[in-house]
Amino acid sequence: MAVKGVTSQSEDYSRWYTDVVRMADLADNAPVRGCMIIKPYGYELWEAIQAGLDKRFKATGHKNAYFPLFIPMSFIEKEAEHVEGFAPELAIVTHGGGKKLEEPLVVRPTSETVIGHAYAQWIQSYRDLPLLINQWANVVRWEMRPRLFLRTTEFLWQEGHTAHATAQEAQEETMRMLDIYADFTINEAAIPVIKGRKSTQEKFAGAERSYTIEAMMGNKWALQSGTSHNLGQNFAKAFDIKFLDENNDLQYCYTTSWGVSTRMVGGIVMAHGDDTGLRLPPRLAPIQVVVVPIWKTDEQKILVMETLAQIREKLTTAAVRVHIDSREGLTPGFKFNDWEMRGVPLRMEVGPKDIEKGSVLLARRNIPGREGKGSIPMDQLVPAVTSLLDKVQEDMLSQATAFRDANLHEARSYDELKEIVKEGWALIPHCGTAECEGKIKEETKASSRCFPLEENKGWTANGATCPVCGKPAIGLAYFARAY
Amino acid sequence: MAVKGVTSQSEDYSRWYTDVVRMADLADNAPVRGCMIIKPYGYELWEAIQAGLDKRFKATGHKNAYFPLFIPMSFIEKEAEHVEGFAPELAIVTHGGGKKLEEPLVVRPTSETVIGHAYAQWIQSYRDLPLLINQWANVVRWEMRPRLFLRTTEFLWQEGHTAHATAQEAQEETMRMLDIYADFTINEAAIPVIKGRKSTQEKFAGAERSYTIEAMMGNKWALQSGTSHNLGQNFAKAFDIKFLDENNDLQYCYTTSWGVSTRMVGGIVMAHGDDTGLRLPPRLAPIQVVVVPIWKTDEQKILVMETLAQIREKLTTAAVRVHIDSREGLTPGFKFNDWEMRGVPLRMEVGPKDIEKGSVLLARRNIPGREGKGSIPMDQLVPAVTSLLDKVQEDMLSQATAFRDANLHEARSYDELKEIVKEGWALIPHCGTAECEGKIKEETKASSRCFPLEENKGWTANGATCPVCGKPAIGLAYFARAY
Repeated sequence: MAVKGVTSQSEDYSRWYTDVVRMADLADNAPVRGCMIIKPYGYELWEAIQAGLDKRFKATGHKNAYFPLFIPMSFIEKEAEHVEGFAPELAIVTHGGGKKLEEPLVVRPTSETVIGHAYAQWIQSYRDLPLLINQWANVVRWEMRPRLFLRTTEFLWQEGHTAHATAQEAQEETMRMLDIYADFTINEAAIPVIKGRKSTQEKFAGAERSYTIEAMMGNKWALQSGTSHNLGQNFAKAFDIKFLDENNDLQYCYTTSWGVSTRMVGGIVMAHGDDTGLRLPPRLAPIQVVVVPIWKTDEQKILVMETLAQIREKLTTAAVRVHIDSREGLTPGFKFNDWEMRGVPLRMEVGPKDIEKGSVLLARRNIPGREGKGSIPMDQLVPAVTSLLDKVQEDMLSQATAFRDANLHEARSYDELKEIVKEGWALIPHCGTAECEGKIKEETKASSRCFPLEENKGWTANGATCPVCGKPAIGLAYFARAY
Repeated sequence: MAVKGVTSQSEDYSRWYTDVVRMADLADNAPVRGCMIIKPYGYELWEAIQAGLDKRFKATGHKNAYFPLFIPMSFIEKEAEHVEGFAPELAIVTHGGGKKLEEPLVVRPTSETVIGHAYAQWIQSYRDLPLLINQWANVVRWEMRPRLFLRTTEFLWQEGHTAHATAQEAQEETMRMLDIYADFTINEAAIPVIKGRKSTQEKFAGAERSYTIEAMMGNKWALQSGTSHNLGQNFAKAFDIKFLDENNDLQYCYTTSWGVSTRMVGGIVMAHGDDTGLRLPPRLAPIQVVVVPIWKTDEQKILVMETLAQIREKLTTAAVRVHIDSREGLTPGFKFNDWEMRGVPLRMEVGPKDIEKGSVLLARRNIPGREGKGSIPMDQLVPAVTSLLDKVQEDMLSQATAFRDANLHEARSYDELKEIVKEGWALIPHCGTAECEGKIKEETKASSRCFPLEENKGWTANGATCPVCGKPAIGLAYFARAY
C-alpha cells in the first residue's frame, strides 16, 4: 500500500530508505554535512542494540572503559597500513584554547593506536592478560557521500580492544566476538547474517585477519553489519605492547578489535521495512504494543480509557513495552498508519464493543490485512501478547531468512556471476587477488563480501578455479552490491 | 593509617587525590595533555551514575537523543554571551577528508546552539511542546590546568535540553531537574548538597538564571556538582525557536539546559575518601561486597571455595554486587588493603574456622578497625548483608552531612569571612555585584558558590548589608574555595 510521502521500494529503494528514516522519526541531517542527529525514536532503538550487546560483552568478561577523543597525529602514523587506510578520512584539530597546536590532533576514526599506547603501559606480565576492554564512543571518518546511519562522518559505535598472551587466544577471542555479533543480530534484530572472513583487500587497515557478519537488505544489497579483527602482533609491535611470560621472557602481545555501529539501525530499517514503513523486531522495538483507543461519545471515552489503564498496568508488569496513543484530534486510521510507519510489532484496538465482549483486537505489523488480525479475550491478555510477540520475532527471522536464501546463488562462471549480482549474491570459487576483486567491482559493481565460514552444502573450493582469472581458488567467496 | 604510595590528606590533599585516583585504578592521563582515560573501575562508577540519573530522567518524561559533535563556528557566535564565555576554551577542526574546510568546525563544548538549530525545525505548534530531550555525550573545553575527573579537556556528561511554551513551565523544569540532581547526589552518592542560584557572574554563558548543587569535599573546598539553567528566550531568539500558540500566534519558546558530568566521580572520591583510599557509597559501588578466601592447606582451599560459590550464588540472586578475590600468590592482608583502596563498602572473610562455626566475618569500609567488624551466621547472610549495605549508605550520608554542617559558618563581617574561608564555607549577606565578588576572590581565593534556596535557620538578607561594600544585600550567599 502506498503511503503519502514515502517512495515505494520498487520505484526507488534509496529514496524509500531516506523517506522512511525521516517519516518514522529516526534521524535528521545535522547542519554540518555528513553528520546526523539521532532523534529519540532512533536513539531508543540504538539503546536497545546497546543493551543487547553490552550484556553479551559483560557476560564474556569484558569491562567498559573510555579512551580519549583526540589522538596525536604521530600515533596514527606508527602502523603503516593503518595510516594509509585512515589518512584520507581524518578530521584534524589544529587549534585549541585560542592557540595553534604544536602537533595537530586527530579526532579518533577508531582507537587501536591510543588504546595500544595505554596497553603498553598497563600490561607488565602474563598475569595482566587477557585484557578485555570495550568502549562505547563516537568516531569520525570524513564521508563524501553520506547516508543517514549507513555512512556518516560521525557515528556511534562500540569498539572492543583485547590483548592476549598467545596467537591462539587472540584468534579465539576474534571468533567469540564474531559469534556474539551473529547471535545478537540473528536473535534480537531478526536478521540472518553470514559469518565470513574478509579478503586481504577488504580487511581492516592494520589487521592480520578481519571477519564480518554480512546481512542482506530488502534490495538484495549487502550490509557489513559488524567486524571482528585479529590484529596479530601488528599494533603490539607498533606500540610496544609487551609482557613478561611465565619464563620471565619479554614477549609481544596479540591483540584484537571488534565493532558494531549505529549502521545497525540502518540495517534493521532495510532488512525488514516495507512500503508502509519500518517493521521492528519485538526484542528491539522501543514500543512493542501500541494501543489505539476508539470512542465516539464522552461516556465511551471514559469507559475505554479506564480499560486502557488496566491494560497498561498488566502489560507493564509483564515487562511488555506498551504505549497508549491517547492523542486528541486524530482519527484511529491516522494513528494506525503512523504506528505502522514506526514499525510497532503489535497494535491493539480497544473500543466500547470490544469491552462489551471482554476482548481486544490485535493486529500484527508483519502480516498486513485481515490475516494478521485477531481478537483475544481480556483475561488472556498477557500470555496472548507475549506469545504473539515471540511469534512475530520468529516469523520476521524466518521471512528474512527465506528471502536471503532465495537470493544466494552459486556462480559457476563469470557470466553467471554478472547475472546473479544484478539481483542477489553470487558465491564463487575465488583466487583472492586484488586484480580479480577489482575487475569484478569495476565490471559489475559487486564487491567481495566475505569467504563464508560455514560450508555450502558440500560445495567447496577444493580443486576449483577462479571464474575470472582461471587460477586456483583459495576459497568460496560471496560477491554482491553493497552499502 | 598510612598506605604506601598514597600521600596523606593532611600532608597534601591535592596529591592525596591524584594518588588515590591512580592507586584505585579509576583513571589515567591520556597522551594528549588535559585528556583522560577512564579505566574500567572508574567507568563502572560512571555507569552507575548514568543508570541512576537516566532512570530519573526517563521517569520524568525525558527521552535520549544524539546531536552531532561538530558545530559550525557561526552557530557559537549567534548568542553573544555564549560565544564570549566559550571562545577561549574551544577546540577547532580546520581540516577534514584531506582538505581545508570552508568554515571551521567547533568540537562541541556544550550543545545549546546545535540543538537550538534543530528545535527551530522540529517545533511548529504548541502541540510539540514541551520537548524534553537529554543526551549522553563527550564535550571538549580546552583546559590549561587539568585534574583527572575535575577539570579535563574532554569529559563525559549528560546535557538535557528542553523547550516550553511558557516562562513558568521552563522555570518549573529548571527546578525539577535541580531537584533530581540533588535527590540523586544525596540518596545515591551519599553527598549532601546545597541547592542554590548562581550569581550573575557565575551563571552559564547565555542563561537567564543558573542553579547549582554544591558539595563539600574532604578539604572543605566546594565542588559544583551539577547545574540547571533557565535560558529564558535567549537561545530561542538566537536560533528562531518559535511555535504557534493556541490562538495561532507565533511565539518564542522558553528553553532550559542542565548537566552532570564525570566530575561527579571526582566528587565521590573527595567527599568520602580517606587516607587508606576510596570509600564508595553502596548504591553506586561497582563491587558492594568483596569476599577474601583464607586457607592454608589445599583441603581447606577446596572447602572454602565451595562455600564461596554458595555465597556468590545467594548474594547474586539477591542483586548484591559481589566479587570473590581468588587471586593466587597474594596474602589476605594485601587483598584487604587493595580493596580498601578501591573503597568496597563491605569485605567478607571466609576461612575454615568460620565455616566450622557456620558464620562469616564482615568488615565495613566506613568504620576502621575492630568496631566495624562482626560475625554473622551463614543462614542470615542475605538479610545481614543487605541491611548492612543500607546502614553503610546511611552512615556515609550522615557522616558527610555532619562534616559539612560543622564547616558552614555565618560571617557577620568581612574579617569573619576571611577567617572562615580558610577552613570552611562562609554565608554572608551579599550585594551580588561583580566588584565585591571579584574583591573577595582576589583577597581570599574564595568564590561565590551560590545563593542557597533553603532558608538558613531564620537568618535572612532582609535589611542586611554586604560586609564588603556596605550596600544592601540581595540575598545570602555562600563563599568558599572551590575546584
